[in-house]
Amino acid sequence: MKKSLGVKTLACPTPLWVVGTYDGEGKPNVMTIAWGGICCSKPQSVNISLRKATYSYSNIIDRKAFTINIPSEKYTKEADYFGIATGSKTNKFADTGLTPVNSDLVDAPYVSEFPLILECKMTHNTEIGTHTLFVGEIIDIKADESVLGEKGLPDINKVLPVLFAPEVRTYHGIGKTLGKAFSMGKEIQQK
Amino acid sequence: MKKSLGVKTLACPTPLWVVGTYDGEGKPNVMTIAWGGICCSKPQSVNISLRKATYSYSNIIDRKAFTINIPSEKYTKEADYFGIATGSKTNKFADTGLTPVNSDLVDAPYVSEFPLILECKMTHNTEIGTHTLFVGEIIDIKADESVLGEKGLPDINKVLPVLFAPEVRTYHGIGKTLGKAFSMGKEIQQK
Repeated sequence: MKKSLGVKTLACPTPLWVVGTYDGEGKPNVMTIAWGGICCSKPQSVNISLRKATYSYSNIIDRKAFTINIPSEKYTKEADYFGIATGSKTNKFADTGLTPVNSDLVDAPYVSEFPLILECKMTHNTEIGTHTLFVGEIIDIKADESVLGEKGLPDINKVLPVLFAPEVRTYHGIGKTLGKAFSMGKEIQQK
Repeated sequence: MKKSLGVKTLACPTPLWVVGTYDGEGKPNVMTIAWGGICCSKPQSVNISLRKATYSYSNIIDRKAFTINIPSEKYTKEADYFGIATGSKTNKFADTGLTPVNSDLVDAPYVSEFPLILECKMTHNTEIGTHTLFVGEIIDIKADESVLGEKGLPDINKVLPVLFAPEVRTYHGIGKTLGKAFSMGKEIQQK
């Protein structure tokens, strides 16, 4: 028997991602989000949701581009700060000492110190309610060589991404490897 | 210096979620996805992306409803199976021995054994490319009492949700708690 919890923005896991944009004067900004994910395999696309009142919202509308910067655990504090402060009042890169790098492919900056970066061109924006859902086509992915593993792909145990638990409002690391996808279930199929 | 990895559907963390739907004859179906997340705080909404060729796609279009069923680690194998088999050829509930429960609020079934369930009404569908992005408004959340913690909210360390690592195609559990959101970063703000 399940207990009804009512209507909440409650799901897990949700990611701790940092969105990079430029404002009208070319100042790099970063904002933390947890409402986002991959949304299409071809063209390879991601979605992020932002409130209209955020500084980043206007930046994305104007520049039609953003980056997704995936922090490793050791940058949880900085990523949390990026979700507290607003780019309209401060330079978050300067505040944290992190380094903005101009993407050579899209009109947005990325965070040099974060291990995994997605450079995206905005292709859709849909107003859902308090939040606008932006879809971005992935133009390139950049990664620190130190986090690459088999086949030159990022090893999640080296990237060490962070999860956000909504409502409870805590951050979590990733844990043990549970198995291979599109493989574990075959045992059931063969029965 | 970062290495360019080219265009890939590569981001982390992405969730291992199971989407519950009814087909035209009322047969309950479940399908596993990793392209999804929360997308709006009010109305509280989630998004999931599916290929048109999937059995679940037509079910959602017809019924305008779906559930998101969050498996705990111990159901990783079943969730993987739900991503391998197709509801057009088999009854995945029967195959796994898991129990469909009819939602009393939306026209979709949920998985009784999974600890956390979101019941959703479809509000938007947008074709992105290979995948269609569905937005669902959360009508209720249901949880097993055994996974509830402080303030009656689900404790992620009891839910034990599963992450999917795209491209590398592995499943992962959640790890250690890293800190409190909207709190850790204040230290930087006060400098």
